[in-house]
Amino acid sequence: MSQKPILYTSLSPALLHLYDVKDTVVVVIDVFRATSTIASALYNGAKYIIPVDAVPKAVEISAEVGGIAAGERDGKLADGLSHGNSPLEYTKDFIEDKILVLTTTNGTRLLHMALVNGADDIVTGSFPNLTSVCNYLTKQNKNVILACAGWKDRFNIEDTLFAGAVIHRVKEHFTIHCDSSFMAENIYTQHKENLPQFAENLTHYHRLVNRFGYIDDIEFCLTEDVADVLPLYKDEKLVKG
Amino acid sequence: MSQKPILYTSLSPALLHLYDVKDTVVVVIDVFRATSTIASALYNGAKYIIPVDAVPKAVEISAEVGGIAAGERDGKLADGLSHGNSPLEYTKDFIEDKILVLTTTNGTRLLHMALVNGADDIVTGSFPNLTSVCNYLTKQNKNVILACAGWKDRFNIEDTLFAGAVIHRVKEHFTIHCDSSFMAENIYTQHKENLPQFAENLTHYHRLVNRFGYIDDIEFCLTEDVADVLPLYKDEKLVKG
Repeated sequence: MSQKPILYTSLSPALLHLYDVKDTVVVVIDVFRATSTIASALYNGAKYIIPVDAVPKAVEISAEVGGIAAGERDGKLADGLSHGNSPLEYTKDFIEDKILVLTTTNGTRLLHMALVNGADDIVTGSFPNLTSVCNYLTKQNKNVILACAGWKDRFNIEDTLFAGAVIHRVKEHFTIHCDSSFMAENIYTQHKENLPQFAENLTHYHRLVNRFGYIDDIEFCLTEDVADVLPLYKDEKLVKG
Repeated sequence: MSQKPILYTSLSPALLHLYDVKDTVVVVIDVFRATSTIASALYNGAKYIIPVDAVPKAVEISAEVGGIAAGERDGKLADGLSHGNSPLEYTKDFIEDKILVLTTTNGTRLLHMALVNGADDIVTGSFPNLTSVCNYLTKQNKNVILACAGWKDRFNIEDTLFAGAVIHRVKEHFTIHCDSSFMAENIYTQHKENLPQFAENLTHYHRLVNRFGYIDDIEFCLTEDVADVLPLYKDEKLVKG
């Protein structure tokens, strides 16, 4: 009799320490917009992506590797960077065969947390690459932690919705005994037919759309499989798996 | 033009530091079963309740004050204590005019966290005293934090459901811009007509019912206003407000 591997959902980086990350597959989730942008750039042919946590580091590393330094602070291009955080900026014409050095705060921190805590494999997940993530998880036969990036350690709904979408598709392959996962699937199945309308209620939507006007970004970030690739984190780089 | 006070929901004690507790009303929520038992004992006439975090402290303090030392560990009466954590044990016949010294782990820790962080008022909430909590919050005209105790810092659904029940009733009186609160109300309104059936899916239900047989406790803990009293935390005691 084979035992199914276990799946947990961590709703915030501040809760990740409650789960045994060692030897698991960790899926880093930052739906608006880091992991959606990562999927978009790799799908459109970026050589690889170096995620970094600070703007000066992005400037320095991009100069070293001849890459594109990208990132925003408060919805604007950060000083010294040439491109933003929008998944729509990274078209094939622009990004193919290039190296992207992307500053993200919540997402990069989670990637490093997963790494130092001994995760076996680290991937990034978003609606644009949902199917690739699910296929990967079901093939590994390892324990999984769906790690939501949240917003400055606060819970957010969009990352939880994506965790729910994954659970909805892979749950037959896992033992799931975790209220966070149950809630995530519940809220996803309740709203999956109208994600864009439901998203209008979210804190992050208000910030991105009402303050900065990124309505097209939101739509991309909530569309399943439009950049269906598996970003694998290896040697501090995200590569196409 | 009057500004409405702000309401936040903290989904776990490990997330409470993200909110400014100072000068707020904090509602400590531990639905299965600490805050339900507190409501039950005070409603049935207990003089007051001293919540403590450890069994030896409960034994010591109850001897000092001539109180009843109560608490469980792993579903059984803890050594040296005479009563358990069930709200059904604290009938009027038994508890009236007595002092209850109750060991709770998650709940007591949260009460102390709220206190040391400068909360103005601290109350405990559960379905059995839902209306009292809501009436109190709407009268105070202060910012509110609904603080879920969770389970060993992990998110749990039952505490979140209660936060959602409060939000559902008081939201017109508050500014609420917080995904945790939005999710809580969403999951509550979705399941409010069938809470006992919905609860069968929860981690904590499995523990309490399947392992320890506390089905009657669960039913009591999910019934609104059956012990409708306001437990106020003052000078390390919970008193009827």
